[in-house]
Amino acid sequence: MAPEMDQFYRSTMAIYKSILEQFNPALENLVYLGNNYLRAFHALSEAAEVYFNAIQKIGEQALQSSTSQILGEILVQMSDTQRHLNSDLEVVVQTFHGDLLQHMEKNTKLDMQFIKDSRQHYEMEYRHRAANLEKSMSQLWRMERKRDKNAREMKESVNRLHAQMQAFVSESQRAAELEEKRRYRFLAEKHLLLSNTFLQFFGRARGMLQNRVLLWKEQSEASRSPSRAHSPGLLGPVLGPPYPSGRLTPTRLDMVRPWAPPPPPFAPPPPPAPSAGPWGLRPAAWSLLPPRAPVYAAPLRRSFRPGAASAPPWWLGRRPENPYAEAWDWGWGLE
Amino acid sequence: MAPEMDQFYRSTMAIYKSILEQFNPALENLVYLGNNYLRAFHALSEAAEVYFNAIQKIGEQALQSSTSQILGEILVQMSDTQRHLNSDLEVVVQTFHGDLLQHMEKNTKLDMQFIKDSRQHYEMEYRHRAANLEKSMSQLWRMERKRDKNAREMKESVNRLHAQMQAFVSESQRAAELEEKRRYRFLAEKHLLLSNTFLQFFGRARGMLQNRVLLWKEQSEASRSPSRAHSPGLLGPVLGPPYPSGRLTPTRLDMVRPWAPPPPPFAPPPPPAPSAGPWGLRPAAWSLLPPRAPVYAAPLRRSFRPGAASAPPWWLGRRPENPYAEAWDWGWGLE
Repeated sequence: MAPEMDQFYRSTMAIYKSILEQFNPALENLVYLGNNYLRAFHALSEAAEVYFNAIQKIGEQALQSSTSQILGEILVQMSDTQRHLNSDLEVVVQTFHGDLLQHMEKNTKLDMQFIKDSRQHYEMEYRHRAANLEKSMSQLWRMERKRDKNAREMKESVNRLHAQMQAFVSESQRAAELEEKRRYRFLAEKHLLLSNTFLQFFGRARGMLQNRVLLWKEQSEASRSPSRAHSPGLLGPVLGPPYPSGRLTPTRLDMVRPWAPPPPPFAPPPPPAPSAGPWGLRPAAWSLLPPRAPVYAAPLRRSFRPGAASAPPWWLGRRPENPYAEAWDWGWGLE
Repeated sequence: MAPEMDQFYRSTMAIYKSILEQFNPALENLVYLGNNYLRAFHALSEAAEVYFNAIQKIGEQALQSSTSQILGEILVQMSDTQRHLNSDLEVVVQTFHGDLLQHMEKNTKLDMQFIKDSRQHYEMEYRHRAANLEKSMSQLWRMERKRDKNAREMKESVNRLHAQMQAFVSESQRAAELEEKRRYRFLAEKHLLLSNTFLQFFGRARGMLQNRVLLWKEQSEASRSPSRAHSPGLLGPVLGPPYPSGRLTPTRLDMVRPWAPPPPPFAPPPPPAPSAGPWGLRPAAWSLLPPRAPVYAAPLRRSFRPGAASAPPWWLGRRPENPYAEAWDWGWGLE
């Protein structure tokens, strides 16, 4: 057989070998890895749901409080938003499962046998044609040696057979190449579909969060307003001295030292320096604190407050040692 | 003690109880759930990386082929993009871990003791002051009964003490309310930070995919062009009949039936009807197929192709029974 025919034959067989021994096992492995990926998606979705259900419960507790309804509302909305994100992510998961993994799995199973058969049939057909051509060429050679009167006709036959053989190997190679390319395109287009589903998810998720984050930020900042620090209805009108006295003036009240807790772990941090972290400047977190250190009013009788005049009370004494001060070095901001 | 003082006392104690018995255990649980959530993130990130590494290897195989370099390039780029997305997702994960869970965990540990102490000290201080006031009121009552000359001064003292007590309970309640509110705000602002980190991730991810998906789509469609179906260099010039004959015309070649495989599982589907699926119209997937069914050229000698004239060859016979036809009912598109 002519060397170029043989070259076509070997390169066509190599394509079938590559599909059988590289592409299909790789696709099979991809289906396995894809199922792991899918399980990781489901696990994330579930963990997010459980986490944000817990956030929602805390938000509902805040809604019951007298102080933090707005904050409770924000927490509940965050939980709702997460649920929406989760259900949008479900579209990605379904696409990945139904449109990629299932097709990939089905195709790779069918394809192993199909490519084996194709390769085998190509091999048989090639040998048939090659043997046919060889035989005709031998016959022609014998006829030409014998100066047979039909040699000219035979030569035309051999030429025709040879041309058919050329067309056969070249078209068969083209067909095998198409098969190879189809498989890579299948994979690329399937993952293009996945990428596009992700793109749409990211777009929707971004749109969903964009306005809400701004709204939550505004509401959260509004809730810092000192006027909302407690329910005003509980104060003032209820209070009235049982022993009326014109001397109970606001100036006097300023002198009263209420019981004040030591700085707690949930206290805001000192105002940030102008150079802020990656999240930009924080809103000053001090607005809820009294504008100045309260002045302690000495008790009427020393006997009821032993040591009150000689040593600072425990809460003043503890303040400098506050172990929680750095626990509040946090904040957030929008770029 | 006056009922309104008692009411303040009980409602302040209830706030401490709620922080101790509701908020802090809920926060502790949230840290636990958050760590699960974090693990799920890591697992997803890892599964995605393994999956797209496998895609990359297939892409590199395609780059080695003679037919699918563009498709290989697309697959490798998809894998790169996934790596970028993963590293962006890492920012979300780090924020969640460092800025939320660690703070929440630290605060909830410190807070249990702090709130217990605060409640206990408030209780003690309230009782001191209440006892002090009761005692002064008894004394005043005795002095007024005795018409003591210092009764007027004592009355002023009692009034002052009473006002101080009022200010104490009201300010203490305000302080407890602030503590409660601080904790809910902490939670809300921390999750606002998380939401904002997600928002930025979604924005970046969308931006990253948007142009690439379009480019991949174009490249993938361009690779359907029949001119790229095989390497033209391998055909044509190599072929030349060893027995030159002017009768080998293109018309003749058209009559040659190359070996043609049966429709494979990776074959494109029939052109879609105008009403397309959720992903819109598909590009016609037929362009790689020969424009018409090839005509089969009868073999020169029947002895080499037994039964060829009496029955259709196996590949024609198999075609109608193709079990893979529906495996290609897929496609993708951009909205």
